[in-house]
Amino acid sequence: MAITFYDLCGRDERLRFSPYCWRVLMTLAHKGMPYTTVPWRFLEKDALAFANYDKVPVLTDGDMVVTDSFEIMRYLDDAYPDKPVLGDCVSYQRAHFFKLYIERSVTPALFRIVVLDLLDAIHPGDRDYFRETREARFGMRLEEVHNPEEGRSQLKQRLAPVRDQLRTSSFLDGEAPSGADYLLFGSMMWAYVVSLEPLVETNDPVDEWFKQMLNVHNSVAGKAITIRDL
Amino acid sequence: MAITFYDLCGRDERLRFSPYCWRVLMTLAHKGMPYTTVPWRFLEKDALAFANYDKVPVLTDGDMVVTDSFEIMRYLDDAYPDKPVLGDCVSYQRAHFFKLYIERSVTPALFRIVVLDLLDAIHPGDRDYFRETREARFGMRLEEVHNPEEGRSQLKQRLAPVRDQLRTSSFLDGEAPSGADYLLFGSMMWAYVVSLEPLVETNDPVDEWFKQMLNVHNSVAGKAITIRDL
Repeated sequence: MAITFYDLCGRDERLRFSPYCWRVLMTLAHKGMPYTTVPWRFLEKDALAFANYDKVPVLTDGDMVVTDSFEIMRYLDDAYPDKPVLGDCVSYQRAHFFKLYIERSVTPALFRIVVLDLLDAIHPGDRDYFRETREARFGMRLEEVHNPEEGRSQLKQRLAPVRDQLRTSSFLDGEAPSGADYLLFGSMMWAYVVSLEPLVETNDPVDEWFKQMLNVHNSVAGKAITIRDL
Repeated sequence: MAITFYDLCGRDERLRFSPYCWRVLMTLAHKGMPYTTVPWRFLEKDALAFANYDKVPVLTDGDMVVTDSFEIMRYLDDAYPDKPVLGDCVSYQRAHFFKLYIERSVTPALFRIVVLDLLDAIHPGDRDYFRETREARFGMRLEEVHNPEEGRSQLKQRLAPVRDQLRTSSFLDGEAPSGADYLLFGSMMWAYVVSLEPLVETNDPVDEWFKQMLNVHNSVAGKAITIRDL
């Protein structure tokens, strides 16, 4: 069956930066599964009406419709169990904790670094929507959220356990990347695609890991169009 | 074979509060294994010379000697694989990440809350040693580290992913406790045994989880002597 997923695009349709869509893309690459992406913009709610959902990623697999990136990862593990990314039982629980750690701790620090770059990367027609929804969520103007220096300091502190883990294994999940790596990578790739701001220092094990992640699975991420290519 | 482990004790020999020893004790309880503990004080380095180690826990299992709490958990999983606490492959990697998260993020916040209670709970003869080693580690006097209000605020923020996880399952590792639960519990129990300070709010899912953890495995932790019993 053919897999299609709706993927957020920016001012150039080839610019793909959603952290949640990158989780799915890396999961599909991990499993070696063919897929087609449909570029999607924030205001194209009608295009997702069939899924009864208003955000991406949305994945269709034949007649099956799955929404939410973590649920999609779980669905792909259930439907195509050969190379699991989340695993089951305690593996699944611990991946779920890791997802929460990334969303509660790492992603907000990254947001402070790249928020204005992100605004610039999205389609001009989406910018008012992006500003209104994010300013309502944070209770402040995007220009007040923007603080790359403080964001980098927070990121460095919050990545401490990641850094320590990478001192003992090449990837978070061991000697090959798996679910935890894709969860962190999604957020880092989000920032990397839209911004020229350095995220971590070049001697940080996280930097070495990120470069390796760009190369895995036939460089699916390394070949992606970034703001540097436009 | 008989298992013995060296367990840190306080000013009353029955007062046991090492977060690392609690990890081991809960692992043994999880596996339903009999054991004997040997109370040990910070300065009794000679008693551990046989292990070529200067801290507890140290575990002996017949002729086998294992040091370091996480290595002991791994040893017990390898030697007694029936009810694993860490698991292997990605389960193990994710437990290892969780241990680093606890040590880098949760334990330092707890230390700020209970440091002076801890000083009071240890044996008078150990207090100079404790002060010197900890002040060297933190680069400040214990009285400056002590800041329960700020510690509680940090703890609340750093436990955010734990709190979210406990909204979807009774324990961190699922519907029954396992390795991740014991890793967090060790640190929480450390503070609970020595201090009257509240750690989390009573409506926090972490509070409910902690009470459940006191009850599991025939209330092995719930029956422990605390500062409230002396």
